[in-house]
Amino acid sequence: MSENKITFLIQCHDSKGIISKVTTFFYEEGFNILSCQQFTDNIQESYFMRISLDAQDLKYSRKELIFKFAEVADALNLQWRVHFTSDKENVAVLASKTTHCLFDILEKHGEGKLQCNIPLIISNHESLKYVADQFGIPFHYLPIDSENWIAQQEKILNLMTEYQIDLIVMARFMRILSSEFISAYQEKIINIHHAFLPAFQGANPYRRAYERGVKMIGATAHYATDDLDEGPIIEQDVERVSHASTPASLAQIGSDIERKVLSKAVKYHLDHRIIVTGNRTIVFPETED
Amino acid sequence: MSENKITFLIQCHDSKGIISKVTTFFYEEGFNILSCQQFTDNIQESYFMRISLDAQDLKYSRKELIFKFAEVADALNLQWRVHFTSDKENVAVLASKTTHCLFDILEKHGEGKLQCNIPLIISNHESLKYVADQFGIPFHYLPIDSENWIAQQEKILNLMTEYQIDLIVMARFMRILSSEFISAYQEKIINIHHAFLPAFQGANPYRRAYERGVKMIGATAHYATDDLDEGPIIEQDVERVSHASTPASLAQIGSDIERKVLSKAVKYHLDHRIIVTGNRTIVFPETED
Amino acid sequence: MSENKITFLIQCHDSKGIISKVTTFFYEEGFNILSCQQFTDNIQESYFMRISLDAQDLKYSRKELIFKFAEVADALNLQWRVHFTSDKENVAVLASKTTHCLFDILEKHGEGKLQCNIPLIISNHESLKYVADQFGIPFHYLPIDSENWIAQQEKILNLMTEYQIDLIVMARFMRILSSEFISAYQEKIINIHHAFLPAFQGANPYRRAYERGVKMIGATAHYATDDLDEGPIIEQDVERVSHASTPASLAQIGSDIERKVLSKAVKYHLDHRIIVTGNRTIVFPETED
Amino acid sequence: MSENKITFLIQCHDSKGIISKVTTFFYEEGFNILSCQQFTDNIQESYFMRISLDAQDLKYSRKELIFKFAEVADALNLQWRVHFTSDKENVAVLASKTTHCLFDILEKHGEGKLQCNIPLIISNHESLKYVADQFGIPFHYLPIDSENWIAQQEKILNLMTEYQIDLIVMARFMRILSSEFISAYQEKIINIHHAFLPAFQGANPYRRAYERGVKMIGATAHYATDDLDEGPIIEQDVERVSHASTPASLAQIGSDIERKVLSKAVKYHLDHRIIVTGNRTIVFPETED
Repeated sequence: MSENKITFLIQCHDSKGIISKVTTFFYEEGFNILSCQQFTDNIQESYFMRISLDAQDLKYSRKELIFKFAEVADALNLQWRVHFTSDKENVAVLASKTTHCLFDILEKHGEGKLQCNIPLIISNHESLKYVADQFGIPFHYLPIDSENWIAQQEKILNLMTEYQIDLIVMARFMRILSSEFISAYQEKIINIHHAFLPAFQGANPYRRAYERGVKMIGATAHYATDDLDEGPIIEQDVERVSHASTPASLAQIGSDIERKVLSKAVKYHLDHRIIVTGNRTIVFPETED
Repeated sequence: MSENKITFLIQCHDSKGIISKVTTFFYEEGFNILSCQQFTDNIQESYFMRISLDAQDLKYSRKELIFKFAEVADALNLQWRVHFTSDKENVAVLASKTTHCLFDILEKHGEGKLQCNIPLIISNHESLKYVADQFGIPFHYLPIDSENWIAQQEKILNLMTEYQIDLIVMARFMRILSSEFISAYQEKIINIHHAFLPAFQGANPYRRAYERGVKMIGATAHYATDDLDEGPIIEQDVERVSHASTPASLAQIGSDIERKVLSKAVKYHLDHRIIVTGNRTIVFPETED
Repeated sequence: MSENKITFLIQCHDSKGIISKVTTFFYEEGFNILSCQQFTDNIQESYFMRISLDAQDLKYSRKELIFKFAEVADALNLQWRVHFTSDKENVAVLASKTTHCLFDILEKHGEGKLQCNIPLIISNHESLKYVADQFGIPFHYLPIDSENWIAQQEKILNLMTEYQIDLIVMARFMRILSSEFISAYQEKIINIHHAFLPAFQGANPYRRAYERGVKMIGATAHYATDDLDEGPIIEQDVERVSHASTPASLAQIGSDIERKVLSKAVKYHLDHRIIVTGNRTIVFPETED
Repeated sequence: MSENKITFLIQCHDSKGIISKVTTFFYEEGFNILSCQQFTDNIQESYFMRISLDAQDLKYSRKELIFKFAEVADALNLQWRVHFTSDKENVAVLASKTTHCLFDILEKHGEGKLQCNIPLIISNHESLKYVADQFGIPFHYLPIDSENWIAQQEKILNLMTEYQIDLIVMARFMRILSSEFISAYQEKIINIHHAFLPAFQGANPYRRAYERGVKMIGATAHYATDDLDEGPIIEQDVERVSHASTPASLAQIGSDIERKVLSKAVKYHLDHRIIVTGNRTIVFPETED
């Protein structure tokens, strides 16, 4: 078995025979199915599937595979997409002043734990340049204020196009993206919010967590949508805190949750494990493949 | 060392010498200090302390101890209260239809893990009578509707007085208590809310958690206040869930969190480990004493 | 969709086309596949699958289904077994003196959370009779000492046969079963060990955990085998503890982990989610079906 | 309140009046007690205390404070030590080939989360030099084989003396230190073992965890003693795994637990929160001070 895989993500209205027909198609095309995960949503009557194939079994062109599968898909009324893992995705990281999320992503990427290219880091502050330099990644400083924010977003979009960015990771980037920006990258912008959503949406979640006297704090990674902190949640985690925590110490404890959650979410996305349905995500758990 | 303890809970404005003066007082009165926990809130400039003494060291009457300590307290401007653990508190449990929280409390009480008396269980449904019977505890059925709710609350208050209730535990009791009721039992009503506050306050938290697509659900035990689900949080916990969970399965998973959290909060209260400050709680962690 | 399901558990040497052929068989027999989970063990080159079908789709007898599937299975060299969820399993609970695990199982069973019959409880002490009585389940007291243990195991085996027991749950039952006993119920005896295996096998794990100064304790549910505490692990969980814990308080904290872990393991077994492979278990996670 | 603190760690045989006398001493010397944590071990009849004072309140020399406190300590038969937080400890990090633990420490140190100096990194491989360079810390490459290991340990000890090292952190350093080495740095060598001790002591814990089929894996930070992986445990943590994990994926999941646990243990040590008693540690939990 080679390293490279072909991953199909499929969704449709639930009905009999889907798994049989889809798996049979791949079998008859000569593929070894490395992994087949599915989920039947009985409430929405929807069906979701993730199939991972050994890329070595592809005996003809990608175009042909896509064409052939499209026929099956049309017959079964499937929505679908396919990813070839040998094509690494290009990921842009947006950061502001906090280091930890940016660090974690760059470190995991450097160790080969995140299969992607990171062509650039963009920040509205200069202070994180040293981190980008440490990892040898181009750093673009774009200072932002209320007047120039729209123009700067234009610049960012241009950079995204120039570098053929597939995924934008907002690693504690503290500006709110416009609707236009978000539409351009629907389900391709992952944001980390430093609270356990839907608690403490918006600004100063650590201070507000302190004031509410919660006994656990958390972080949430989600796809950015027009509504701040309301997009589909990908991953969350928490840690216990106590009355002894202050907003400052909550931020410290929270930083380790944020980095873990964001990196996990980015990995799920890069491994093509996520299907967005409505405002929720189906996340096919990590098996080997 | 005997089983019985004398627990002092103290708070005041922070200043030098409090721990020295208080511990010296007890030492000079012949007490062995079993446990001394403190917390200095630098933000509020407040000081909180919990001291646990060996009741066997009390060589005179309780009245005398209280009188003597009051002098120290006045000199230091302390707010304080004292509990003698040989006096078991009387706990009333209010329940509606769900069994698990009620069960957990009765089971732990039966095994001596909750040091208290449970003289009665009150419910607005008859369905839980069998649980009360299993544990041999008097069951009071008080049907409730929007017309009679105020009158029924009167009845409940009368029962609380009659049975000399010190703590009311709302074990998934689904009616909202009036301001008058709550004032009568300030910081003596513990409620379990089946969500991770401040997320999903109010009704149907499991359905709303499902709709929001959260990846973890939780439960929160808090003191009831006039504002629904907004009172000081005592304890919280969470469990991981996934896209595969439905509102029904979330309620199942949640039930085990609710019972654990409620019983823990009740134990903290009965062990006199909680001081309420503003809308937050100081919870002195469990050591042996 | 009805409540009742037909669950197939399958294993074989990994090869191409299994999922296609198996799912196609069920589809062609008119079944709606409610759930299909698989796992490819690349190290052992083994393949495991759990398929859950809507029992309502069975248009002929069970015998026929078994016969037909056997043909597919033979052709593919599958090891397999099938369960019809409308057939509730008979579960016997063995207990000694601790209540909490027994309580949790009886409570969950009473609330319909464990789909099974519990025809009897067996104990080598009388002290738990009141728990059996609370739940209205026949209690068999079998006092045990080193002389009569073999004879008593005979008696227990006879009871197992008499009540057509499918699963034996050792809920902190503190005697070691003989090889003969265990062979009679291979992979049908679930034991809870009050430690996080493989740490602290054998006696007094809480005391030994205290002495080792661990910062977390746990419990492990596993299938009983000839080697004490070495059988395939089904489920484990942990809780944080501190230097302040004594063997006694560790036992208290541990009791809540034990009950949770044992009940979870029993549920996995009753839901036919477990395949034992070597000394490990494949546990297909809980989805709705 | 200034940033700098004076931390006393005290232990003795338990008896009446210790907290009173010690806190009164500090009060009378003009100190504000920022934090006072104690633990009475009823089994060993020992008493432990950690007191944190505002360094700004020190109105005379350190020598004088030490002299004065020594008198109190002698009278009460206390074992004690004092730390002045303005004196940063010198920490040496020993690493082999894995990056993650080293990275986490250097990153947290760079962000001011670990209050110490890191004058050097020593490794028996060259591959981690780039990490040391990234953080601008001198890297000493000392290749090791069975013949030169004793000599190399001499070199390391010399470097420890030269750099006045107070704490040695073994960040997945894979050689076993000699008794002589360990005696030289009693309770000053923190090792991370990539398993949840006492499970899987020694080599290849991830492979062995895989073979045992555990459902959780963990990591343990402990003080190194003569007996491999048997020293006093400082901190542990776990993560859930499943049958789908291989030794390789366990190592990946484990890496994030290892780094978190090691950094936490190092911080506890640097914050003077640990007292070793027998083979266990008292760890005074983190409050603000």
